[in-house]
Amino acid sequence: MSTLESTVDKAASTVVPLHPLLARRWSSRAFDPDHEVTDEQLTALLEAARWAPSASNTQPWRFAVTRRGTTEHAMVLDTLAGGNQTWARDASALVVVAARTTGTDGAAQPWAVYDAGQAVAHLSVQAQAEGLAVHQMGGFDRDRLTTVLAAADVTPLVVVAVGLRDEPARLAEPFAQRETAERVRLSVGELLLPVRPQEGG
Amino acid sequence: MSTLESTVDKAASTVVPLHPLLARRWSSRAFDPDHEVTDEQLTALLEAARWAPSASNTQPWRFAVTRRGTTEHAMVLDTLAGGNQTWARDASALVVVAARTTGTDGAAQPWAVYDAGQAVAHLSVQAQAEGLAVHQMGGFDRDRLTTVLAAADVTPLVVVAVGLRDEPARLAEPFAQRETAERVRLSVGELLLPVRPQEGG
Repeated sequence: MSTLESTVDKAASTVVPLHPLLARRWSSRAFDPDHEVTDEQLTALLEAARWAPSASNTQPWRFAVTRRGTTEHAMVLDTLAGGNQTWARDASALVVVAARTTGTDGAAQPWAVYDAGQAVAHLSVQAQAEGLAVHQMGGFDRDRLTTVLAAADVTPLVVVAVGLRDEPARLAEPFAQRETAERVRLSVGELLLPVRPQEGG
Repeated sequence: MSTLESTVDKAASTVVPLHPLLARRWSSRAFDPDHEVTDEQLTALLEAARWAPSASNTQPWRFAVTRRGTTEHAMVLDTLAGGNQTWARDASALVVVAARTTGTDGAAQPWAVYDAGQAVAHLSVQAQAEGLAVHQMGGFDRDRLTTVLAAADVTPLVVVAVGLRDEPARLAEPFAQRETAERVRLSVGELLLPVRPQEGG
């Protein structure tokens, strides 16, 4: 465990143990502006996403990968909401995630967005295994991001900042405070739905 | 590695190594009909889902958990497409996954379905860590499943079979053949979108 991990311990609070890759993942915003992600790491993240499950193996997920310091990266960064830009610019890469919501036959793919979420979750788990942090953003100019992507037949969903976690102190407020705040979730009980015996069933 | 794992090796084929929890996960259909999942395991799966990330921490995912042998399980099983019922009945539990697609203020939650996908991916990774297999199903009678769930304000998305992997030979065709077939995916290159320099930008 690095010094950094020990000063900002945001491990999930659970009543039974979770695998550390899940328990220790969290969406940080403080990224090391000098860190470079390797080609092998980016490939591993895409491989993780690629091998996610999807409805009838439709694999609706698509990705655009841009590294900090490139023209393409600046174009993607510029589509982000202003608050996100202030910290996301320091991440080593920005990965645009989009989904094909209609199949090649023109039929709707009802699970395309759901499955894209699964793929990015797998990407995030692999990032954690690589010692990288990720933060997904839904705050961007959808029209401009669609223009930036050369493919007209996909729907942009999120932009994922990928990089090496850094000290919270490098963030401006309100982000510095959020970086060290306790992580909160609904309880397991609050997530459970009853199954209702049916009258006359 | 168990004998079973060695006879059906479906590890992902990748150009760089993936974490084993991701590389060795696949959606099997052959489940041990005598296996019982423990309370601790079911709780761990829900904890994994609970701690997934979501847009503005909205946590739109909801779950109904039913164990094989209960009235509630039979009700959920009965909503599944016929082909799914033939094998899913042997899984130790069926977990219904639903999403709240509108917030408490009535506003749409555009990432609700996407985030539910992330939560189930985290659940699946934890299942893999627990030595359990999962198979998600989108083939069910939505109206009947909505009726079975006591909550009217959620949208059912998938039903997840959870159990212990068993020999492919216990499945009827076409499922036995699918169980041992090679896993296939688009290449990483086929998933990549270019970022287009903009005219006059």
